[in-house]
This record gives sequence, structure tokens and C-alpha cells, in this order.
Amino acid sequence: MLKIKKNIALLGSTGSIGTQVLDIVKNKPDLFEVFLLSANSNYQLLYEQILTFKPKHVVINNKKGYLFLKKNVSSKHTHIHLGENDLCELVKDVGVDLVITAIVGSAGLMPTISAIKAKKNIALANKETLVVAGDLIMPLAKKNNVSILPIDSEHSAIFQCLVGEDHGTIKNLTLTASGGPFLKLPLKNFNQITIQDALKHPNWDMGSKITIDSATLMNKGLEVIEARWLFDIAPKNINVVIHPESIIHSMVEFFDGSTKAQLGLPTMTTPILYALCYPCRTSYDGKSFDLSDVGKLHFLKPNYIKFPHLKIAYEALDCGGSAPCVMNACNEVVVEAFLNKKIKFTDMFKIIEKCLEKSIFVAKPTLEDYLIIDQEARKKTKLLIK
Amino acid sequence: MLKIKKNIALLGSTGSIGTQVLDIVKNKPDLFEVFLLSANSNYQLLYEQILTFKPKHVVINNKKGYLFLKKNVSSKHTHIHLGENDLCELVKDVGVDLVITAIVGSAGLMPTISAIKAKKNIALANKETLVVAGDLIMPLAKKNNVSILPIDSEHSAIFQCLVGEDHGTIKNLTLTASGGPFLKLPLKNFNQITIQDALKHPNWDMGSKITIDSATLMNKGLEVIEARWLFDIAPKNINVVIHPESIIHSMVEFFDGSTKAQLGLPTMTTPILYALCYPCRTSYDGKSFDLSDVGKLHFLKPNYIKFPHLKIAYEALDCGGSAPCVMNACNEVVVEAFLNKKIKFTDMFKIIEKCLEKSIFVAKPTLEDYLIIDQEARKKTKLLIK
Repeated sequence: MLKIKKNIALLGSTGSIGTQVLDIVKNKPDLFEVFLLSANSNYQLLYEQILTFKPKHVVINNKKGYLFLKKNVSSKHTHIHLGENDLCELVKDVGVDLVITAIVGSAGLMPTISAIKAKKNIALANKETLVVAGDLIMPLAKKNNVSILPIDSEHSAIFQCLVGEDHGTIKNLTLTASGGPFLKLPLKNFNQITIQDALKHPNWDMGSKITIDSATLMNKGLEVIEARWLFDIAPKNINVVIHPESIIHSMVEFFDGSTKAQLGLPTMTTPILYALCYPCRTSYDGKSFDLSDVGKLHFLKPNYIKFPHLKIAYEALDCGGSAPCVMNACNEVVVEAFLNKKIKFTDMFKIIEKCLEKSIFVAKPTLEDYLIIDQEARKKTKLLIK
Repeated sequence: MLKIKKNIALLGSTGSIGTQVLDIVKNKPDLFEVFLLSANSNYQLLYEQILTFKPKHVVINNKKGYLFLKKNVSSKHTHIHLGENDLCELVKDVGVDLVITAIVGSAGLMPTISAIKAKKNIALANKETLVVAGDLIMPLAKKNNVSILPIDSEHSAIFQCLVGEDHGTIKNLTLTASGGPFLKLPLKNFNQITIQDALKHPNWDMGSKITIDSATLMNKGLEVIEARWLFDIAPKNINVVIHPESIIHSMVEFFDGSTKAQLGLPTMTTPILYALCYPCRTSYDGKSFDLSDVGKLHFLKPNYIKFPHLKIAYEALDCGGSAPCVMNACNEVVVEAFLNKKIKFTDMFKIIEKCLEKSIFVAKPTLEDYLIIDQEARKKTKLLIK
């Protein structure tokens, strides 16, 4: 059981994961103290969080918000900072025990690297960090003896199944996918999908970017790439199975033929709590889970014709090098364009495919290369959208 | 990974579990050597096993078989012994690394105790050992620093889910039950159940005693009692859920709200292999498990009116003391009587209830008490049958 209080730095505190992390922190004041909060632009919510959690430091990425907080927050208790550079410095502070990266998109990359270099354990909700630069991040974490603790429910499931097991005994990993809101929609109707349709996730309540990614199955593609690096498993040994009820969160098959799974109702509380408390578990109130209340579970193979994004992700991972970084950057831009009604649902994968075709392939990018490749892919995608 | 060869003593080598253990041993000659085989009466099969596995010692419980083996087996390679006393001595041999108790019924008790006292790890397929005397066996195992490794698929599932986890974090255990061949049979037809009907298990291929126990759900009741001792969990925290496909073998819910399960196609190879190789896993050929091939899983609450045996077992466990021992002995006798067409399917639970009512309750039996209680209950049951 946890005994010593952990000081946390929460990056992306106003997002969906960030607010859920703070709900847990609020419920377990004996276990966690908030050292740092950061947000991109939602300074009103950040202001409320400051009043509740009294962090030592706060970083905001937006000038207006910075000025508001500077004016309204007492500097006796909380220092207000502006921008990524300050964030990268603050996560290294000796007072930080755990850095929770709940920033959406590839913006999570630099602060995560900074924290790893300062030997801080990472609770990772930002999957793009590993999607873009998993080949650099994981060796860096290993070198610094840092644990990368997944907050994604699928990766948390696998991580929990692997506790006490030998890595060499893994035969394959299976990520479950709800299938999203269009699992049963005929392909011929995909042309008419609206933003409202795509934002209606059947099981999970998440941010808009990840909800669209769930509707296209790109989210599962990103998770396959994340799993490849997080668990050091060859892509051919990572499977996806569609499981509409989202009760089994993911599975590990061992080479003796035994499979272990982690399951429960679809709530992010479990994986967040596990990452926060690792290597311990802590008690948390809640009704006991009873499969007879659920009644039925269904499983089917993914349909790559209706959901080409998942196939694109496997191909980008097979390709390696710069391909997943290009795919991820391009995907972020097309999802935003779809949410802004600039393109149709079915345009997204076409633009990603075109962008991958048109990008120069770099076999072994450095971190600097990745940052340039990411920016170039975004520019190219914006041109393709026009 | 396993590196040193294990010398095994296999008790009950001609039964369903025993023969499956030997299939694995045959497939993994680099991992296992057979030191001892024992059987009750099937000396023909035992003779074949001697020729294949060349054990140092063999014990048979049957005089005719003993004489046959004495005559036909070269004493240069294999020593032939008769009866339980010799068996209890031989399991203590310095050459034994692991004792596999695959004897059916409470006959497994004494050799298991003898092996534990000699500090031998136990791979336990004989659930009656813990049902009858779990309150004595588990402290004895702890005192002798002996691991009790379950071979029952349900307990193996729980055991695997608990690897690397802290015992204090367990909230509850859920044993899955196929529901047996009469899950959907209306109660009014239970009177006409034949032996042939009861021996048709939908998923598992097992011996006749355990197959009848599966049809009445007494098998699950025995497993609840076994789990209570094996995992040191209060009975109220052990649940049963009916799961007709037998894919999820059992589950552990932790106090943080996370549940872990072990799953796979219904085959005893996995739990046997796990117990034999523990604390390692070893590779074993087989098709990868794919839930999308299974398609659907169902879960429902047990029906205690149709299956009173399960309720009786919970009540006996709650009662404690001599009650589970009486129930188990009585159950062995009624199952045999049913198999010999002396009583009806629906007579079994009535006789067990009557026998429990008529037995003297002993709150804290010693081992000697248990042996007497067991014999008394058998006698009483036989009288009740008449």
C-alpha cells in the first residue's frame, strides 16, 4: 500500500484526463499533493483548480490567460509561468515525484523528454509521445531508470496483466476496440457522417480529438504503435479485436497458451488510479464489478475496408522511421479540419494516405528531425486540405 | 524460463488429469523426469506408463495389479510398491522436486500431508484435500515454506491473476462455472435426468465423478471452499458466475476497482503446464487464442433453486468445522450411488442435506478427527441411501 505522499506535476490539467486525475487527487488527499498544473488555454478552469489544489507552480501556454492568472492568483502560494520552455524546466524540479502527461497531441513530447532526463517517472496519457518518437523515448527512459506508466485503458490493462510476468514469455498482445459509433453503419453511408454523429462515442466520455479518432479507429492504430514501443513487441504480435461493450480492456497471451486480461466497466478512474499509485494499488470506493450484470460480451475482427485508418497505422508502423510521425501529425490536422467542417469524415484517411505518399522518408530520425518532420507534415496536410 | 529438470511424483497417473500431465511430460523431456507414478487399480495403463516413462518407483493400491507389475516390470529400473503407506513414504524422497496430487476424492489427503511435511511443493489437482482439511493444510504448507500450486482451471486462473499482486489488495474472487449440461433444463424435468445425460459435459472432458459434480454444480461448491483456503479469502468475498462458454476461467477484483481474468479455450493443458513450470512459464505449441473466433461470451447468476448443491456448499463453508468434510464425503458416496443407478439425480442433494443435519458438528477438528468424520459420513450416507 502507498505510504508516502507523491508530489505530482500534471500536464494538461484542464482536459478530460487532467480533470479526472484531479478528481482522484481530491479523493485521496493523504496520497497526493499537486506541485504543478499546466494547461494550454483554459485559464478559467485552471484558475479554479489553483484555488482548490494550491499548486506551487502553474504553467499556461496562452498570454491572455497568463496575465489573468498573474493578476488574480496570490504569488505567495503559486508561481505563474508562461510557455513550454518554463514547463520543461519545472518538471525537472526536485520536488516532483511523478509527471502526468495528459497533454493532447505531439505537444506532449518535449516536456516528457525533459522529465525523463531528470529521472522522473511518467504517467503517460499522451499517446503521441510514443507514436511519434517511441524509438527514442523508451531507450531514454531505460537509460534513466524511469518507468513509463500507461494511462490509456488498453495499455494499462496490458501493463497490469504483465505484473510479475517475464517479458520473454509474451506471445502476443490484443488491444480491444469498441468499434466506435459507426461499427454497424454501412460503408455507403459513411459519406454522410456529421461531426455530431462522430462525437457520440458509445462507451467512453473523452475529448473531441480522441473521440473522432475512435470513430475512425485511428485511435486504435495509434495505440498499436504505442504498444509496440511501450511493451517492446513486434507489430505482427499486436492484434486488435472489436469488442463493442468495452469491458475487456485488453489482453496478453503468453507462450504457454495462457491469456490474461484486465476488465471492468469503461471508466478512466481505474487506469489513472493504477498509474498514480504504481507499484501499489489503493482502495477506491465503487460498486463491485459483476459480469452477470453485463450479461453478454461480443468480439469480432476489425473491418479494414470500412476503417482504413487502422490499416494505415499498421502500415506506417511496418514502414517505421518517420512514417508514424508523419501519419500522426497529418491525423491531428485532418481531425481538426473535420471538426471545423472543412472536410468530410471520409476525406480524412485519403488525405493521410496522400500525405504519407508525398513525404520524404527518414529511416532513423533524431529528435530534432522528428520535430521538423512533424511541422512539415502539418504544413503539407494543410495544403492538401486546401 | 525453466532450466533445471524437475523430478516429479505423480499421484493418480491413470486418471484424467494424470494422463494429461504425462502428455505434457512426454512433450517436454528436457524439463521433467518421472520419479514416481501411483494409481489406484488401473494396472494395465500403469504398466504402459512404466514402459514409457521409466519411473524409479511405482505405487498401486490393488493387490492383483501389484502382483502383475511385480511379475512383468524389471526391478532393475522400477521398484513396485503396494498401498498408501508406501506412497506416503516415497513422496518424501530427496529425489522428488514436485508432487502432483491427481488422486480423486479424499484419498489424496494423507500423501499430500506427508509431502508437505517433507517440504515438497504440491501441484494440487485433488480439490478434496483443501475442501476437507484446508484449515490444517494451508498453515502446514506455510510452516514448511511449501507452495500449493492449483491445477483446477479456476484456481489456476486466480493464481495467475495474483502473480506480482499484493494479497491485501484483493476485493473479491469470482469463479466461473459452465453451468453444466442442465443449465437450460426446466426444473420439472430434473427428475428424469439419466446418468448418460449427466455425463455429457458441454465444454470439459473430465472423469465421471467431477462431471457429475459439474452437472449438480457441487463441483463449483467444492471449488468455492478450495478457493477460501487456497487464497485465504472470506467466503462472502467469493462469487460464482455462470459462463456457459468456459472461456474466462476465473477472475480477481482488486480494491482499486480493477479486475483481472485468465482466459483461453477450455483445456487442462494450460493450468497443468503452469503448475508444473511455476514460477516460470514454458513455451507450448498451439494455435493463438482469438476471442473473435469465439464471438460471444455469456454470464448469468447461478440458480440456487435448480442447483441446491452450490447453496449447500456455501452453507457448509459458513458453518465451518466438520461441515465441509461431511458434505464432501457424503457427496462422494451419493455420486457413486447415482452412477450405479441406486438413486436419482435429484436424490443426491436431499441425502447430502439429511446427512449434514444428522452429523455431529465438530468446531475445530484435528486431522485424526477429519479422518473419522469422513468415514462416519460415508457410513451414514450409505445407510440413508438404503
